[in-house]
Amino acid sequence: MKEHFSDLLMAAVAKKGTPVCVGLDPRLSLIPDVIKDRVCARLGEGREAAAHCFVEFCKEIVDAVADLVPCVKPQSAFFEQYGHFGVWAFEEVCKYADSKGLIVIGDLKRNDIGSTAEAYAKAYLGEVEVFDEFLPSFYMHAITVSPYLGYDGIKPFTDVARAHGKGVFMLLKTSNVSSGDLQDQLLDAAVGKGFGSDGRMKNYELMAHLLESWGSDDVGECGFSSLGAVVGATYPAQAKELRKHLPETIFLVPGYGAQGATAEDVRPCFREDGRGAIVNSSRDIIFAYQREAYRDRFAPQDFAMAARAATEAMVVDFASFAG
Amino acid sequence: MKEHFSDLLMAAVAKKGTPVCVGLDPRLSLIPDVIKDRVCARLGEGREAAAHCFVEFCKEIVDAVADLVPCVKPQSAFFEQYGHFGVWAFEEVCKYADSKGLIVIGDLKRNDIGSTAEAYAKAYLGEVEVFDEFLPSFYMHAITVSPYLGYDGIKPFTDVARAHGKGVFMLLKTSNVSSGDLQDQLLDAAVGKGFGSDGRMKNYELMAHLLESWGSDDVGECGFSSLGAVVGATYPAQAKELRKHLPETIFLVPGYGAQGATAEDVRPCFREDGRGAIVNSSRDIIFAYQREAYRDRFAPQDFAMAARAATEAMVVDFASFAG
Repeated sequence: MKEHFSDLLMAAVAKKGTPVCVGLDPRLSLIPDVIKDRVCARLGEGREAAAHCFVEFCKEIVDAVADLVPCVKPQSAFFEQYGHFGVWAFEEVCKYADSKGLIVIGDLKRNDIGSTAEAYAKAYLGEVEVFDEFLPSFYMHAITVSPYLGYDGIKPFTDVARAHGKGVFMLLKTSNVSSGDLQDQLLDAAVGKGFGSDGRMKNYELMAHLLESWGSDDVGECGFSSLGAVVGATYPAQAKELRKHLPETIFLVPGYGAQGATAEDVRPCFREDGRGAIVNSSRDIIFAYQREAYRDRFAPQDFAMAARAATEAMVVDFASFAG
Repeated sequence: MKEHFSDLLMAAVAKKGTPVCVGLDPRLSLIPDVIKDRVCARLGEGREAAAHCFVEFCKEIVDAVADLVPCVKPQSAFFEQYGHFGVWAFEEVCKYADSKGLIVIGDLKRNDIGSTAEAYAKAYLGEVEVFDEFLPSFYMHAITVSPYLGYDGIKPFTDVARAHGKGVFMLLKTSNVSSGDLQDQLLDAAVGKGFGSDGRMKNYELMAHLLESWGSDDVGECGFSSLGAVVGATYPAQAKELRKHLPETIFLVPGYGAQGATAEDVRPCFREDGRGAIVNSSRDIIFAYQREAYRDRFAPQDFAMAARAATEAMVVDFASFAG
């Protein structure tokens, strides 16, 4: 019997004593020359070299934060930019983070239906048919998915996740400015009741109801479902309502730091017992060596130490109310 | 000045005289032994061999249908199953189809925000920073995207598409059974008026209004926008309303064939002038050699000829009212 994803994640959060997740969003232009020079001397200046720069950079970041945080979130988009070379780097980075005892959440926001969704689910969370064998392709513990297609677009992921002790985080109320274009629209009263005192329901509240029902049959011993939600830190009032109505749902929270939200803004994403959320920060950590607060203390070649210092600062920021 | 995507696509539809799109959704278990034996003799039975099987299979399909249809739609999920080997195959298949004069629509359903969405857009539709150069990573003309995140999740794609003469197809009303979970929900009257005579608006109608406004500033000489819509053939009544209200939008229509919709079901996706839609079929064409109607006439090694015959039959099916 595989360990349940949420038990694994909650145990890691408890062990490290922090809900901080380090986002791995490498950008070639921001990778220090010390890495680029070393890689390019060996491989030239093509897409393959870019991919190797990503692997070297991310491995150093992973080494620098592995004892501090429970999880990392590699963002597939930045890797996919370099085609199959980039996806090779994505595989390597996921595998390396896993080997260092970190929970790996692949930020992929995949969505499709039927056998296509199943193909994505098997690729990232399960095992894939390779002639006479079934083999894993990627080493990650959870992925993010997008819900526009309805249950057909979620169930193939939760089915594979359940079978393999993996997790799924579904977009619910996202951190971006225009997230309300669809998510905040007010529904007809006949659809059902919302969370607020006026009883009116918005789309993200409808999706919260659906998410709760879709994830309720796979709750771990820790009391959380393997189907989590992406809830942006930039909308604390909505996060507070969602938190109240989804006690069994782990929130993956983007928006802290570079996107403008403070630790106080993130507070409503946690239950009163200080559990139930992991908080991601990407560029503010991995490219801390370029931030005003760090660049005097850390040379570009010491980028990993700067990332560690920025992670430590973020851990302190959440020490008072989460853990 | 790059040619406008919709002009390119509409010219290809006119030249081939059909709106048929062949979906490239390779599955290892359905690829004929003649290819697997040949590839495995050379490369063994790993993920690399699976990727080479996909390339050989898809190239033969492309060769067999290139003179018949305007476009192909490779589905990334099936390729991603085999990790970086699979993505290499995806690159090769897109490049090959492009070299044969076909419009290539990458079915990726990507969605994200800000610099992450931009990374996806550059990867698939634009050019990516590779040290001192900007280079394309994939050779495709358009991709599918998913709209749950709102305009922040669409604009980075349409911006890059516009700059490079590429196209974007946004999920609108999808073909699956549970597409109504979110898409069909009735909105509050205050949100605006819907398409029906009762004046009530549903989520997919709201998204149609938004899609129209997001795509209205990039209309080609043919009168269609570079921002198209994915509209399932399995909901003809809804397609009819959408068609009426989105005269400048090209519909990419899944659901014909294996998903159950007939050519008559697809008819409402076309304007009265017979333009404005392309209709996809995947497994019914590429694995036609296994269908009852074809397996007596075509041996497994003649799978490409079976695919050609199935394509010809589909072209005939649409000859009476589209083109």
